[in-house]
Amino acid sequence: MGAHIYADNAATTKLDTVAFETMTPWLLEEYGNASQLYAFARKPKKALVEARATIAECIGALPDEIYFTSGGTESDNWVIKSSAFSDPDKRAMVTTAFEHHAVLHSCAAIERLGYPVVYMWPTAEGYITPDILESYITDSTRLISVMFANNEIGSIQPIRELSETAHAHGALFHTDAVQAVGHVKINAHELGIDFLSASAHKFNGPKGIGFLYIRKGVDLKPYADGGAQESAHRAGTENIASIVGMAAALKGNCDTLETSQKHLVNLEKLLLARLDDAAIAYKHNGGKYRLPGLLSLSFPGKDGEAILHRMDLMGICISTGSACNSKDTEISHVLKAIKLDEKYAMGTIRISLGKYNTEDDVERIVQGLKKILL
Amino acid sequence: MGAHIYADNAATTKLDTVAFETMTPWLLEEYGNASQLYAFARKPKKALVEARATIAECIGALPDEIYFTSGGTESDNWVIKSSAFSDPDKRAMVTTAFEHHAVLHSCAAIERLGYPVVYMWPTAEGYITPDILESYITDSTRLISVMFANNEIGSIQPIRELSETAHAHGALFHTDAVQAVGHVKINAHELGIDFLSASAHKFNGPKGIGFLYIRKGVDLKPYADGGAQESAHRAGTENIASIVGMAAALKGNCDTLETSQKHLVNLEKLLLARLDDAAIAYKHNGGKYRLPGLLSLSFPGKDGEAILHRMDLMGICISTGSACNSKDTEISHVLKAIKLDEKYAMGTIRISLGKYNTEDDVERIVQGLKKILL
Repeated sequence: MGAHIYADNAATTKLDTVAFETMTPWLLEEYGNASQLYAFARKPKKALVEARATIAECIGALPDEIYFTSGGTESDNWVIKSSAFSDPDKRAMVTTAFEHHAVLHSCAAIERLGYPVVYMWPTAEGYITPDILESYITDSTRLISVMFANNEIGSIQPIRELSETAHAHGALFHTDAVQAVGHVKINAHELGIDFLSASAHKFNGPKGIGFLYIRKGVDLKPYADGGAQESAHRAGTENIASIVGMAAALKGNCDTLETSQKHLVNLEKLLLARLDDAAIAYKHNGGKYRLPGLLSLSFPGKDGEAILHRMDLMGICISTGSACNSKDTEISHVLKAIKLDEKYAMGTIRISLGKYNTEDDVERIVQGLKKILL
Repeated sequence: MGAHIYADNAATTKLDTVAFETMTPWLLEEYGNASQLYAFARKPKKALVEARATIAECIGALPDEIYFTSGGTESDNWVIKSSAFSDPDKRAMVTTAFEHHAVLHSCAAIERLGYPVVYMWPTAEGYITPDILESYITDSTRLISVMFANNEIGSIQPIRELSETAHAHGALFHTDAVQAVGHVKINAHELGIDFLSASAHKFNGPKGIGFLYIRKGVDLKPYADGGAQESAHRAGTENIASIVGMAAALKGNCDTLETSQKHLVNLEKLLLARLDDAAIAYKHNGGKYRLPGLLSLSFPGKDGEAILHRMDLMGICISTGSACNSKDTEISHVLKAIKLDEKYAMGTIRISLGKYNTEDDVERIVQGLKKILL
């Protein structure tokens, strides 16, 4: 058997080697606390400024709109929980039934405090159209939160139209873009986004670091109180090594975005063609606008979890759904939200290819699936 | 001029080389998401179990009492904010006027939501005695939060007596032990602590990682909602590399605790003896029970910030107070809390020595101070 194949890039990604090399001096020699006054703090301080600028440029934002956090979960919690209390006349929030749990469970937390949240149902292909959003917004809606791209089926939402709809009703617009940043072109200003959550380990950066974009002029109370870091909006000693690594990884991905996308679309096509060649019946979820490389495939009458385990025995890493609730063998809330027939839902796997995957990986994935499914 | 001297170990510490080496495989090869089901997730899952056990052992706790966070600030925010809502009949909190801002500003946040907080004033030497605590507790006190050791003057609090006093009144006891963990012996169970906050970069671990100890049987609602990580109490993909690095650093420090303490006490004695030799007048703040190596020295009639800058020009890193609010040139809230006379307070510097400092470093620090002060 050849080397292990990693095809679960939606769960986490391999750290970019350049990003790692960028991190090491900050782990080893330049360990100064960026918030101190002496010369030894100058380099980390400068590194922070540069990382912030790099990240801002990658997502079409201004440097002072980027706030470093410990990851996507913190960013989502921050927006949802901190904005709940902001306006007594606009207490309601609108989100979707197929958000990541970082959004859904944060919403549940504010619901318990008496702040109403309504959950939109996407189309069968996994989209929230502006019409759907329009039907849920009321005058008391303060915040809309719609993920940029779904982490299980890859569907990319019409963000610009959704943010316009939100703004037309005086609501703010947040997108959990954890699955999209570094994988599709994003211009936060052009898309009219007020808040955007991102996580480095989803775009070949290190784990435990992420950011929240907060549009200039929009007020958001701090979530972590303490020191004056991040313009007094997110306390805690700056994690320079990881921040610098995140910036390097994002820049790496963004600089090669089109090449990677083409590569991933080619791998996808190859994979689906091979399944067709083998006459394996499947349903491909997520519609036309999808994250390149993320394939949600339903094999009617089969058992997704059994496929995962048998693929694992062949050294191939795939997933049934999101990593965060992998112990849960029920049908995922995402597949329920798109009302996928149970016959298909139970037989669903997620293959998420990344920039390091090759045609050979795809051939081996298909060989594996053929052994299991034929 | 010789090499740069780092004497600001209370702000942050140099990452332990062994800890760094322990981290690298998790950054480079073993990047699997610990929450996934396949074999590639097994090693990170095992590493998490081992790191948790190592940390628990170092602080006299059980592994399932350790919850990984992004650092001390998050741990403090978690305890203070999540416990606020827990009991409608016990709404009040008692803390001290000289806590870290992560505690003070979290308290301010719950005060804005209508939860009362009272602030205890320490003695002139920087201690909260059980009698002081007794005089502030009422029947409605839910939580007491007293830092283990103060980050500016180093005074170590009588934690066991304070936790006993808290429990005698039916209140829970939290300690922000960010400055103490890995530097003094801590046994959470023996000390009767219910919650303990820690931050890796203060004990030669990486930045951006820490933990919260929650005593078994004590209920604390999650602060970060989302995935089911950390027994569904702290969502977010596990930052394996940093967690493993934190455990290695803590074990390294705890295994050599007595040697380091002796070394640091000797360096302290040398420094003070040299100041005495030079007939430099100073007040040594923080009383008898102090963190080894942390010296808060007040030079009457002098300017602490000017001393810091002139030392910096000589390549020596010291501090005036905590790193988190270093832009603030006012007298720190800690020095105000111990009611230090302004003549002394304005001339206060913090020299915090660490395990990598040498006698030669101390000689150079004293030479620097002599140039400035004589």
